Amino acid sequence: MTRPSEDELIAHFFAPLAGPGAFGLRDDAAILAPPPGCDIVLTKDVLIGGVHFFPNDPPDCIARKSLRVNLSDLAAKAAEPRGFLLGLALPEDWTADWLADFARGLGEDAAAYACPLLGGDTVKTPGPLAISVTAIGAVPSGRMVQRAGAAAGDLIYATGTIGDAALGLRLRLAAADDRHWTSALSPKAAAYLADRYLLPQPRLALREALRAYAHAAMDISDGLAGDLVKMLRLAGMTAEIAAAAAPLSEAAREALEAEPTLIETILTGGDDYEILCAVPPDRSLGFEAAAASAGLTVSAIGTALQGAAPPLFKDAEGQALVFAKASYQHF
Amino acid sequence: MTRPSEDELIAHFFAPLAGPGAFGLRDDAAILAPPPGCDIVLTKDVLIGGVHFFPNDPPDCIARKSLRVNLSDLAAKAAEPRGFLLGLALPEDWTADWLADFARGLGEDAAAYACPLLGGDTVKTPGPLAISVTAIGAVPSGRMVQRAGAAAGDLIYATGTIGDAALGLRLRLAAADDRHWTSALSPKAAAYLADRYLLPQPRLALREALRAYAHAAMDISDGLAGDLVKMLRLAGMTAEIAAAAAPLSEAAREALEAEPTLIETILTGGDDYEILCAVPPDRSLGFEAAAASAGLTVSAIGTALQGAAPPLFKDAEGQALVFAKASYQHF
Repeated sequence: MTRPSEDELIAHFFAPLAGPGAFGLRDDAAILAPPPGCDIVLTKDVLIGGVHFFPNDPPDCIARKSLRVNLSDLAAKAAEPRGFLLGLALPEDWTADWLADFARGLGEDAAAYACPLLGGDTVKTPGPLAISVTAIGAVPSGRMVQRAGAAAGDLIYATGTIGDAALGLRLRLAAADDRHWTSALSPKAAAYLADRYLLPQPRLALREALRAYAHAAMDISDGLAGDLVKMLRLAGMTAEIAAAAAPLSEAAREALEAEPTLIETILTGGDDYEILCAVPPDRSLGFEAAAASAGLTVSAIGTALQGAAPPLFKDAEGQALVFAKASYQHF
Repeated sequence: MTRPSEDELIAHFFAPLAGPGAFGLRDDAAILAPPPGCDIVLTKDVLIGGVHFFPNDPPDCIARKSLRVNLSDLAAKAAEPRGFLLGLALPEDWTADWLADFARGLGEDAAAYACPLLGGDTVKTPGPLAISVTAIGAVPSGRMVQRAGAAAGDLIYATGTIGDAALGLRLRLAAADDRHWTSALSPKAAAYLADRYLLPQPRLALREALRAYAHAAMDISDGLAGDLVKMLRLAGMTAEIAAAAAPLSEAAREALEAEPTLIETILTGGDDYEILCAVPPDRSLGFEAAAASAGLTVSAIGTALQGAAPPLFKDAEGQALVFAKASYQHF
């Protein structure tokens, strides 16, 4: 296949991924029969080559990341994925091989997360590759876990480990200033961090625990410190966070040992795609047990407090950490 | 406002457009309570500056077009708009004035079409402006009008008038070869055609008539001739079309009089955003009456016939028209 028409391209690469209600991607729109007693949950992320991923990332990983960052939003809202729409703007130099790999990765993830392709649009762009995924989920009516809702005294939890992807990005960027710690990392740690940047792991398994126990939740995409501000200020809250309680992977610990100032990258860097949530203290044991039985690690990192100040991060000696830049900003 | 953060930008320009369930655009996702007894209808179009619109088009028109091309898809499916998500990739040189105009146009259309903003994502791109709208509609369960379904003997109808936008685009491109007819146009005709390119008119008012009478429908976005092929081949149909029956605006007639070969642009050019549908002959009077009472003009342009050949367009003398290029192709 050299230069197919748009219809041929869709029929060849994407129709095999189409779910029920997608009419084989040959209609103007898709239908979704809403599950009875549920709200539809809608989220959309746009990813641009050279901004949100490296243009030379493996095409299947670009596809997976595009879907997974949206699934991470659904996970944080305690929603079950039901399908997605793909908007794809292909640069002039796209190739059939590239697109075949992209579609394969997308299809494998769509199957793994039970989130079929429902529709979309494919266009050409004189600019970089741009991908816009709209993910559609469902939650029992009125039970979406909102970003607002944290209360004074709530324990602040994070899933998984924090900072890996931001360290992975710095490894990938390979700045000369970073060589003293990147070269000190074991190959295993370096590979782990690189992979954490490349492939987010949406924490969909936390859904039931969030719905049952959390006052508020969001996914961490722009850095723990900055996203914590976003979650807490909606409720008029601040927090005191024990930096030492932030869950770190072995690989991140290795990096931090080689370069202690990386704590700022770990706590403020983006692309974690873990879930941040606020759980009332008398429900914390139940939450931890529910998370564990879902196979997920959750770590209490601090406590919500009434107030408008940014959350206070304290080091192991009780000293306040001051960050040069609290969160990843696109603008 | 000079260079706001992403959150400030969203709060300032887009939060005022947010509908119920959008949480003021301060959450990871939006909820939509599905109307009882309805299917959710989902559609998504991507528009790229320099490809789907001129980068110097008025920003409010770019916004309106981005929403309206999606509403046109919902209209063709007989769906009622319920809301939309906006993915916006802003080029480096965006300005607050530009974005304010964009948001104003978007907000006015969202209100006019009762289709509130539910969420989305705003990012920066080193490439051209890119806009991805996902529109969400609702139809009574199982009643979406599909693109497939035309039957032999069905009358083929088009709403409104055909070819205006394609002529408007040629006016806008102002090629030297076109000067003999563009300069012959009255200022009124030229303005009309230019506007038809700039601002699609989604035919949402046809919903009830489509649901009650049509076997199949789609919106005409890539040219009447090409889109007719797409609709009919899904049902194993072809058609005989009377080119003279294609509904033309006064402005298009003026252009056609000055340059008779423009009939090809009219019948194959894109951006009509009219609705094409197939209606059984014994239901055609009812369909026409329902369309008229909804305030829409519909014109029967031919008849569906069993067969795999492309539809035959005949001129007033019964001679077959042969097109160099049957439809607008993005690839």
